[in-house]
Amino acid sequence: MKVVFMHIFKVIFLAGATLFAAGVVGAEADQGPTVMARAADVDAAAAMLRDQALNKNVAYAWLTQLTTRFGARMAGSASERKAAEWAAGSLESMGFDTIKIEPFDLQLWQRGAESAEILSPFPQKLVVTALGGSRATPPEGVDAEATLFATYQEFLDSKVDLKGRIVVVLQPTARTQTGVGYGLNSGSVRSRGPLEAKQRGASAFLMRALGTETHRFAHAGATQFQTKEGIPSLAMSPPDAEAMLRMKVLQDKGEAGPLRIKIVSTPRFLGGGQSQNVIAEFRGMEKPDEIITIGGHLDSWDLGTGAIDDGSGMAITLAAVKTMIDAGKRPRRTIRVVLYGAEEVSQPDNKGLSGAQAYADRHVNPATRVSSETHILTAESDFGADVIYAASMPVASQTDFNARLGKILYPLKVYVDPKPADGGGPDTLPSQRQGVPAMDLRQNGMDYFDTHHTADDVLERIEPAKLDQNVAAWTATLWLVANGDVTFNPQVRK
Amino acid sequence: MKVVFMHIFKVIFLAGATLFAAGVVGAEADQGPTVMARAADVDAAAAMLRDQALNKNVAYAWLTQLTTRFGARMAGSASERKAAEWAAGSLESMGFDTIKIEPFDLQLWQRGAESAEILSPFPQKLVVTALGGSRATPPEGVDAEATLFATYQEFLDSKVDLKGRIVVVLQPTARTQTGVGYGLNSGSVRSRGPLEAKQRGASAFLMRALGTETHRFAHAGATQFQTKEGIPSLAMSPPDAEAMLRMKVLQDKGEAGPLRIKIVSTPRFLGGGQSQNVIAEFRGMEKPDEIITIGGHLDSWDLGTGAIDDGSGMAITLAAVKTMIDAGKRPRRTIRVVLYGAEEVSQPDNKGLSGAQAYADRHVNPATRVSSETHILTAESDFGADVIYAASMPVASQTDFNARLGKILYPLKVYVDPKPADGGGPDTLPSQRQGVPAMDLRQNGMDYFDTHHTADDVLERIEPAKLDQNVAAWTATLWLVANGDVTFNPQVRK
Repeated sequence: MKVVFMHIFKVIFLAGATLFAAGVVGAEADQGPTVMARAADVDAAAAMLRDQALNKNVAYAWLTQLTTRFGARMAGSASERKAAEWAAGSLESMGFDTIKIEPFDLQLWQRGAESAEILSPFPQKLVVTALGGSRATPPEGVDAEATLFATYQEFLDSKVDLKGRIVVVLQPTARTQTGVGYGLNSGSVRSRGPLEAKQRGASAFLMRALGTETHRFAHAGATQFQTKEGIPSLAMSPPDAEAMLRMKVLQDKGEAGPLRIKIVSTPRFLGGGQSQNVIAEFRGMEKPDEIITIGGHLDSWDLGTGAIDDGSGMAITLAAVKTMIDAGKRPRRTIRVVLYGAEEVSQPDNKGLSGAQAYADRHVNPATRVSSETHILTAESDFGADVIYAASMPVASQTDFNARLGKILYPLKVYVDPKPADGGGPDTLPSQRQGVPAMDLRQNGMDYFDTHHTADDVLERIEPAKLDQNVAAWTATLWLVANGDVTFNPQVRK
Repeated sequence: MKVVFMHIFKVIFLAGATLFAAGVVGAEADQGPTVMARAADVDAAAAMLRDQALNKNVAYAWLTQLTTRFGARMAGSASERKAAEWAAGSLESMGFDTIKIEPFDLQLWQRGAESAEILSPFPQKLVVTALGGSRATPPEGVDAEATLFATYQEFLDSKVDLKGRIVVVLQPTARTQTGVGYGLNSGSVRSRGPLEAKQRGASAFLMRALGTETHRFAHAGATQFQTKEGIPSLAMSPPDAEAMLRMKVLQDKGEAGPLRIKIVSTPRFLGGGQSQNVIAEFRGMEKPDEIITIGGHLDSWDLGTGAIDDGSGMAITLAAVKTMIDAGKRPRRTIRVVLYGAEEVSQPDNKGLSGAQAYADRHVNPATRVSSETHILTAESDFGADVIYAASMPVASQTDFNARLGKILYPLKVYVDPKPADGGGPDTLPSQRQGVPAMDLRQNGMDYFDTHHTADDVLERIEPAKLDQNVAAWTATLWLVANGDVTFNPQVRK
């Protein structure tokens, strides 16, 4: 998952206003006995599919193959492309109806050599990694005095001369279930910090990685895409930042002089390249042109193997559909699994989400789309592999739909939040901007930022039983959505 | 801690035989009322010191300064030397009576660049680190077909042609409280594996790191010191080894071709250099020439900051003496804290433990020592920072001493093992070979090999309360030993 929380809030306020204005257009206004009987059938099937999903292990098996065969899948890389081709084949063999690979253009950034060390007064090596999209140092590195700031705000408020300095921001990340601690941090420190430092004349930017753990991993992640205008920008592992805070205490007590730091980081801007979305459908029986998009993103950062970010999201959502296929249960509407390319990297326009944007342009935006299909709901799984604890639906479903959903999800220890969805996953944003409502199946994120964007994002972080709980919740929820009488998109009449 | 378990067993069998033959020479044969009254006083003081040690936080504060100021302290490095000088100053300011720094010679090995990747059929990067003392690849690396072995024995038994191959041994390490799982592994796979592979014509050796966790850290550690005769030898992180095991399954099923691996590793042999021991005494009041040596080792591997291996061992033992100093309690015998240099690295003769050997040559071995003092007991803390759960004394103490010790240690959740000590810590071995008996204060090692020799061996792995439990156990035990009537060394009459 990348930096989108700040954007999400904005989108929600805009889209939310539209939805509230539209009201509960599609609500069950005319529930006769037939409709209610059909609802009971749908609910029974959803519960059956939920239980079948619980012990199938499809998601874990798929994720195991993906991570073993392709390792890291950097946006625009050969590995991402080959993984997309393999994924398309795997979806075909699972029994999806149609599978397409749709390429799109993007600008490429590639990590180079990277190292950093404190030269004085406490010489030692640091564990660092360049922020995605940041500029390189000269090959011999940058060697300069560092100015340490305990928080980002302290840096922004500072009046000290930073010309030629390495700006070091040591602010930690709060551990939260929703990830809001990361959202607020990354929305500013990581994306804007480097250019704020550049504007103050700094020679480089070094921040405490946006991670909640104390293991010695530097967390990667995008900053605003720089070509000429930026400065070398890196994240360091939390234990290194803690050590530097202790050095700052010695400095503040007058027991240590200024820190001199050397940074070598040689990423390259490779110019234009291609990534791709993989799109696989399980066609609806009655309303095949009413589309529900689900999925995750196929690219990962280059340090780990993208098991929790976002191999698990793809595995969970495709396994949900596989559960229906294996049970011989075809829904009324079409469920489309999209494995988005290039979610993680920022782009020169700093918009990012290139794959999701390409999808929305081609399939959702009435001005540019190639088909007349209608998207009634969108959702993504992109918050790791821990259990789902809450579901929230678009505002248009604030009816007895939620009560029915709760009955089916509670056995999985999932409650239904009466408040409307406020995220949907980063890759749903371009579709949401076109008015497609989103739902959330919210995962526990307490430990997500321990690992995400690090070399430690590997299969060993995954607990298969938790994946299956996710698959069960997705399967049951999708079945209700794809067969129900609620029309989530107010633009669509049922 | 380095690879010494196999050696320990040998030493114990030899030394044990001597001790058993000598019998309980110094046992309390003539306990009159005076002796018993004095024992009661000693026990009361030991209990008081134990309780004072419990909440002092001296060890954690010292360890914090050490790791913050010096980071990694590779044997023979400037960092190790400066840390030794700083440690000497800190011991002086704590009130130790005499502090010496004693240099000794050693051969230096220094890590270079290192990386590895699978080129085909599943291209991906591996997290690796060179084994200490191993040879370099050419600058452009070694690029060869790999042969995978699930266990070391499978490799040793194999009849396949390994000429030019990269030998990959994927054997995991068993998790045990005593560390014996590591001892058996490292005693063979890591120390002998590279040369066994070389003898079979292999171009490089790659092993699953000797770690018990599943985080993506490669564990360093010494192999047999190589200059011309060796081959490039590295350890890879456990998750990478797990992925390779899955690839082997695909190979065995005929679904994947052979693995091609590229390794770059450019360590250097720097020739002769110096390390040093730091020796600090709290002199005994009545028998100052009867010496009890305790301590830990000052050097660390170069990836982490040596917090658990072995900053904590030094911190625990010096804090035990500091507790006595602060309480104004001076023992009858002398307690000598030795911070050994160069424990981790192997040497061209593959003996290692250069600092401990230099200490024994200079202070213990009657043929070479510079003084006439007598070492009555030796012990080292070098197994991390978890709690102590057992104490075991030399065979000569199998008397009511153990009952007295148990009464004082049980409140710390430490039992006294009736069996004689069987380790004493790696740096005690050269002294043990000269007949000095050892005691063990055994720490829980269940998690020790999760971290040791990795970049993750940093202050964040330390729980201050556990350090204090260690200090309390050491303080109480030392007080009994330094003031008691038991003479542990059968060469010494009381």
